[in-house]
Amino acid sequence: MSDEMGPGHSRRKERSRQAILAATRALVAEEAYEKVTVEAIAARAGVGKQTIYRRWPSKSAVVFAALLDLSEDADGQSITLPDTGDLEADLKLVMRASVKEFADPAFDRLIRALTTEIAQDAALAAEYREKLAEPMAAAKKARLRSAQRAGRLDAEADLDLVLEVLYAPLFQRWLHRSGPLTTAYADSLVDVTLRAFGP
Amino acid sequence: MSDEMGPGHSRRKERSRQAILAATRALVAEEAYEKVTVEAIAARAGVGKQTIYRRWPSKSAVVFAALLDLSEDADGQSITLPDTGDLEADLKLVMRASVKEFADPAFDRLIRALTTEIAQDAALAAEYREKLAEPMAAAKKARLRSAQRAGRLDAEADLDLVLEVLYAPLFQRWLHRSGPLTTAYADSLVDVTLRAFGP
Repeated sequence: MSDEMGPGHSRRKERSRQAILAATRALVAEEAYEKVTVEAIAARAGVGKQTIYRRWPSKSAVVFAALLDLSEDADGQSITLPDTGDLEADLKLVMRASVKEFADPAFDRLIRALTTEIAQDAALAAEYREKLAEPMAAAKKARLRSAQRAGRLDAEADLDLVLEVLYAPLFQRWLHRSGPLTTAYADSLVDVTLRAFGP
Repeated sequence: MSDEMGPGHSRRKERSRQAILAATRALVAEEAYEKVTVEAIAARAGVGKQTIYRRWPSKSAVVFAALLDLSEDADGQSITLPDTGDLEADLKLVMRASVKEFADPAFDRLIRALTTEIAQDAALAAEYREKLAEPMAAAKKARLRSAQRAGRLDAEADLDLVLEVLYAPLFQRWLHRSGPLTTAYADSLVDVTLRAFGP
């Protein structure tokens, strides 16, 4: 047995994984998405192309992993939303952070690339839902259910619809570049949602 | 001068244009979008590839023309929304039609393809806004302003935001395939919007 199978091997594997994901994020931020290739990612990360293909089946899978890795870094293992008892303040905090994220050019390029892949690729869409969208939605719904128990939100409200009214305008405005992504806009989406689904 | 320059020429040009747009719609409905090529469109339409390139610079431009042609057929020259005086009924009529359109597989393929092109291509996005999104938004805002004058809608409401709350949830649910596209859903978007922006 060589030390390839020991803890040094695990550390090297994790280092190469991180290098690949960082190279992917850097390239997506710099280049038109169709020009980002698995070859270019491998060259930037200093690994062989096969090292990437052993782990991920396609460019879109690596791009998705690069995004997921960012959100795991940011949120830790379990995502929770602030719950200070003040629903309006908590939602504005969260929505301002989301608006800021979409307005960040590096994030913009990554999520724009992934959105176009997801629109065409039903398998990737399912993975996106399972690994990112659904855990995020579950965390948001936990906060909304707490607000329903506290009488701050209509107890009968359909929470999927509440989340759509809160987030879909931001998503569409970002995707179509149809308006400014500002703190005031984040706040107005919370105000609208609370008017629509207040008790 | 041959008759190539006379009215017979115009008629033939329009016939070939219609054949190209119909072939584009048929191919987009049948094939994965990346497999639809200008060559394949030309073959299906029974024209030369150069006939297409003389009129449109790229595949995405032909696909957009094919969509625009559908909406011009459906709506005539100027788009107007029903105005019976009953805002809720008028909006439900319009939203039910939109939901039905998004749920139609042929339209789905066309608009999904175009959405991915638009997300990447800022020039096509601008053309889409100018030729389709803005005229549609203007028609919808005319109906909303009439409701504001009639006291059915908050006179201070930001109409861009009203339209986002009405349409963005449908757009996102359709794009991410994250929920059913039903008449009840169309109605619930109108109900939510009227609660949020009522007088």
